[in-house]
Amino acid sequence: MKPYRKSTDYSYAIGAFVTIELLENKIQYVEEVLLSDEIKDDLKNKIIDLCTRNNIKYSFNSKAIHKISGKDNVFVMGKFMKYETDITKDNHIILDNPSNFGNIGTIMRSAVAFNFKNIIFIGNFADYFNPKVIRSSMGSIFRLNIKSYATINEYIAENANHTLYSFMLDGKQKLDQLGEFKKPYSLIFGNEASGLDSSYHDISNSLRISTTDNVDSLNITSAVTIALYSAFINS
Amino acid sequence: MKPYRKSTDYSYAIGAFVTIELLENKIQYVEEVLLSDEIKDDLKNKIIDLCTRNNIKYSFNSKAIHKISGKDNVFVMGKFMKYETDITKDNHIILDNPSNFGNIGTIMRSAVAFNFKNIIFIGNFADYFNPKVIRSSMGSIFRLNIKSYATINEYIAENANHTLYSFMLDGKQKLDQLGEFKKPYSLIFGNEASGLDSSYHDISNSLRISTTDNVDSLNITSAVTIALYSAFINS
Repeated sequence: MKPYRKSTDYSYAIGAFVTIELLENKIQYVEEVLLSDEIKDDLKNKIIDLCTRNNIKYSFNSKAIHKISGKDNVFVMGKFMKYETDITKDNHIILDNPSNFGNIGTIMRSAVAFNFKNIIFIGNFADYFNPKVIRSSMGSIFRLNIKSYATINEYIAENANHTLYSFMLDGKQKLDQLGEFKKPYSLIFGNEASGLDSSYHDISNSLRISTTDNVDSLNITSAVTIALYSAFINS
Repeated sequence: MKPYRKSTDYSYAIGAFVTIELLENKIQYVEEVLLSDEIKDDLKNKIIDLCTRNNIKYSFNSKAIHKISGKDNVFVMGKFMKYETDITKDNHIILDNPSNFGNIGTIMRSAVAFNFKNIIFIGNFADYFNPKVIRSSMGSIFRLNIKSYATINEYIAENANHTLYSFMLDGKQKLDQLGEFKKPYSLIFGNEASGLDSSYHDISNSLRISTTDNVDSLNITSAVTIALYSAFINS
């Protein structure tokens, strides 16, 4: 086994918590599990039980874990084949050109926390199966449906019945004055540095998050989390 | 000039945006400003103008910038003396044993976005003047009053008229059912991994943020951002 590269057709869940999320939610794509000799008994038993019940190969190999993870404090990892999932007709989160692995993972964690089941990537999205994304999602990635489109227009063509809401610094309406989102809906967020193109004003309902004038903008994960939470408590 | 260390009595604002925030908000603590030869003219003029008007020494020294920042794409930095500020009687954010530089900075950015002026650190807090905190705060740190206490009891003794709200996974009341916070108030958040000690149930109003059961918890910065936003739009 080798360290992760974007071009491979497999990736790794690194760490006990995310490996269990992988085994419990996407067992059909798991290739094998590696354990360290130093793993605690209760965790070892839980993981071996999951592997045995599902006919997943496992082995003890601290050296390979260290080589792939680059870390000394990792005791479990799972190798899985990258997969595609169909999105449902339920509400969607759309990330247009997100670039930071940690941000994408954190957004996935908030998505699951606030009952979103679908994430869409538009354009030059980051490699969402990178182990850094998986780790910062705390394994939430394995509970989500993920699909990508080259352009927002391709997305709209296939999902015409969704009401689109874009989050923009100059959004026309304040989020806290919107009330309920019209279901099924799609919440759209732009790149960390450049935000969304102004054309989103025309193709969607543009929203802004109220803040003081003392900051340029919110961190992207903060903006997404506020939007998802607002949708969750108002639904 | 040398790379930053926690033990020094000075620190650095690294990058143009945060250096301007430093110069515009905490000019009295600035020691000197370094510029790179590659800096763009409009930025150079703005920073030299700020320095000249305030009698701040500046010089061109790309080599020192590279040495201190460890990066090639930094064109300005400011050196300043670490300072203490008095907190006001207004609302407070309390971070009990936060450990991650990036998280602390992001929380500071959300604090300024949502009109909080005071941040309190309790216990073994991280070194909040670390340049990584400053950078991830986008310079918002220079707009905040910051004070630290060894224990929450010392804080309470000095701030007896504040109503305390703690954010805990097993908080007794849902944030979205609270309505308005009783002013002046203090919003309290725990460590990234261990949260708040259960004794906070007794000394404060404990709150929880509604989520599905499919995540263990929210990322700490997500929880803080939701709490501050809720307070801001309900005030």
